Amino acid sequence: MTSTQRPVRITDVAALAGVSPGTVSKALNNTGSLKEATRQRVRAAADKLGFVPDPDARWLAARRSYTVGLLSADAAGRFSIPVMLGAENALAAGEMSALLATTRYDPVREAYHLKAFQARRVDGIIVTGRTTDPRPPVDVDIPVVYAFAPSSNPDDASVVPDDTDGTTKIIQHLLATGRRRIAHVGGRPRKHTSEVRAAAAVAALADHGLRLVSEPMFGDWSESWGRRAVDQLLLRHALTATGDQLLAADLVRAERHQAELSDLDLGLDAIICGSDQIARGVTDRLRELSIDVPAQLAVTGFDNWEVMALSSRPPLTTIDLGLEDLGRRAAEQLLDAIAGNPHHGIEYTPMELIPRASA
Amino acid sequence: MTSTQRPVRITDVAALAGVSPGTVSKALNNTGSLKEATRQRVRAAADKLGFVPDPDARWLAARRSYTVGLLSADAAGRFSIPVMLGAENALAAGEMSALLATTRYDPVREAYHLKAFQARRVDGIIVTGRTTDPRPPVDVDIPVVYAFAPSSNPDDASVVPDDTDGTTKIIQHLLATGRRRIAHVGGRPRKHTSEVRAAAAVAALADHGLRLVSEPMFGDWSESWGRRAVDQLLLRHALTATGDQLLAADLVRAERHQAELSDLDLGLDAIICGSDQIARGVTDRLRELSIDVPAQLAVTGFDNWEVMALSSRPPLTTIDLGLEDLGRRAAEQLLDAIAGNPHHGIEYTPMELIPRASA
Repeated sequence: MTSTQRPVRITDVAALAGVSPGTVSKALNNTGSLKEATRQRVRAAADKLGFVPDPDARWLAARRSYTVGLLSADAAGRFSIPVMLGAENALAAGEMSALLATTRYDPVREAYHLKAFQARRVDGIIVTGRTTDPRPPVDVDIPVVYAFAPSSNPDDASVVPDDTDGTTKIIQHLLATGRRRIAHVGGRPRKHTSEVRAAAAVAALADHGLRLVSEPMFGDWSESWGRRAVDQLLLRHALTATGDQLLAADLVRAERHQAELSDLDLGLDAIICGSDQIARGVTDRLRELSIDVPAQLAVTGFDNWEVMALSSRPPLTTIDLGLEDLGRRAAEQLLDAIAGNPHHGIEYTPMELIPRASA
Repeated sequence: MTSTQRPVRITDVAALAGVSPGTVSKALNNTGSLKEATRQRVRAAADKLGFVPDPDARWLAARRSYTVGLLSADAAGRFSIPVMLGAENALAAGEMSALLATTRYDPVREAYHLKAFQARRVDGIIVTGRTTDPRPPVDVDIPVVYAFAPSSNPDDASVVPDDTDGTTKIIQHLLATGRRRIAHVGGRPRKHTSEVRAAAAVAALADHGLRLVSEPMFGDWSESWGRRAVDQLLLRHALTATGDQLLAADLVRAERHQAELSDLDLGLDAIICGSDQIARGVTDRLRELSIDVPAQLAVTGFDNWEVMALSSRPPLTTIDLGLEDLGRRAAEQLLDAIAGNPHHGIEYTPMELIPRASA
């Protein structure tokens, strides 16, 4: 009897678990995007049937191309580039080559590149995005790590920058230098980055029994929003020598050097901004109004985008996102997964405070 | 006799031509960096000996990996990125994949990546650089095209942006809108880009019997140089109502709104800048002095770097370098070379005038 018994096949496991053979392969090889429950159901079915993967197939699977695919929605992006460089650097150190492919937000191009990567038998794929908003997982049968933009499947391996860490460092720096009345000028509303940073500022202040001077403000990621936000904040919080609220006409006179705001109570001592671009608009507008940064008002940026941070007058105290390190971590996680030890869930990489003259 | 005659080998051709076998291969396959004289000497030797390349070797050489190496000194650069994207895009359209490698100006890393490319049997290599200054050729036995930074060997295939074309378009636009007294504020001195643009401005004006109001000025590629250059130009060219030269004290008073420069003869009606960053500094400084752009003075940038060009007040009329098209052309030249039809020498790609409010 035993001699005629045919070996258990992957299709048998698939039938018992009620999934496709591809899903069985993913579950047993710890690759792809699967719910943990599915993975466990497949493993149980394989155990029950005594399924032994075909050694030839395993050998084929073990053949490595020492090539990794870098899939970027937006390779021109300020954020994707350092991530890709960090990844490429770490891969080269591991004698791996990196195939570059950009999708330009086009699902057809993404599908084409994923197919091309698999045709070239890449050992794994790093997927980067333009923002930290979660993105749908890619459906492939090899290890994948998501960098900067996490996968919307929480079981996938994602490496994202820790905006809470960066924002907390900014708040701690301001508190340590004696600032208490802090306003928050964020970027575009309802974006993951904007919301996490605003919430982290509120939480870090609450740890010291403090609050923002007013609700977090949102606009967009531009200099002009930073300039407008300054006027909105001063009209809301600054008081004239006689204790009256400031009027738009007072700003016009200050801009024309017909009045000084330097001896007024601005109602604020720091503005934390959601990006260096916004902060550059803030310092430019404060300069037009002859309000001294940092003596009267501290200003902080976010991103450490040097062209903005260094050309601001004064140069911006800001947060470096550590994107090259993030790319390196993504590459390390991918190399682990290729070696059979996949990561799951989101790993947050730390940020660094870059102190300059503005705060 | 004929039956015992051994076939002519590549080493025989090499000995007769007085070169290495590798050079014979490059010469007969139209690849690598060779002087045209060397190429012709090798061909003459091969003809004289009746050399027929080994068909097996030719077949091996014909095996294509459909992979191209992108070697970048500086993948984070504002210039290399669009070039690589344009190339990657054109290669993907041709079913070719792109291996990315960055050298970070390190010759050891460059040598490592070139070796890795060849080990992976890439069909060809695109080499990009951070500036348009010529760079030494790479020594490989497969087709190479240089993009943005040309090879210092004029026989190699290079694709570079046509700075003369861009500068001429700027001058023509200014002349067409009635500007005659034009100053040139360039970037870093003794750089290829700076010198070509300054010379092109002088030549384009000479075609209309005009000259720059003063010698081209050089500094660096920064906003602060743009701001300083404005003061230098006004102190040199502007006249007060009484016909005297402007003094530094007049600029201080204008900045404090204690004097108006709006009714003075500035001695200029346009400032053309070597980059958008310089031009942003120029418009910022003119704004501080309440000099109206473009009514009193037209200002132009170069690069169409949107973060600078659009946040300038007013937004900058500038030149788009067409870098994605340049990358695409480099890829097309490389595909030609891989197909056996190599290009030689420098191909210049055109630039585009982007008219906005500043001129």
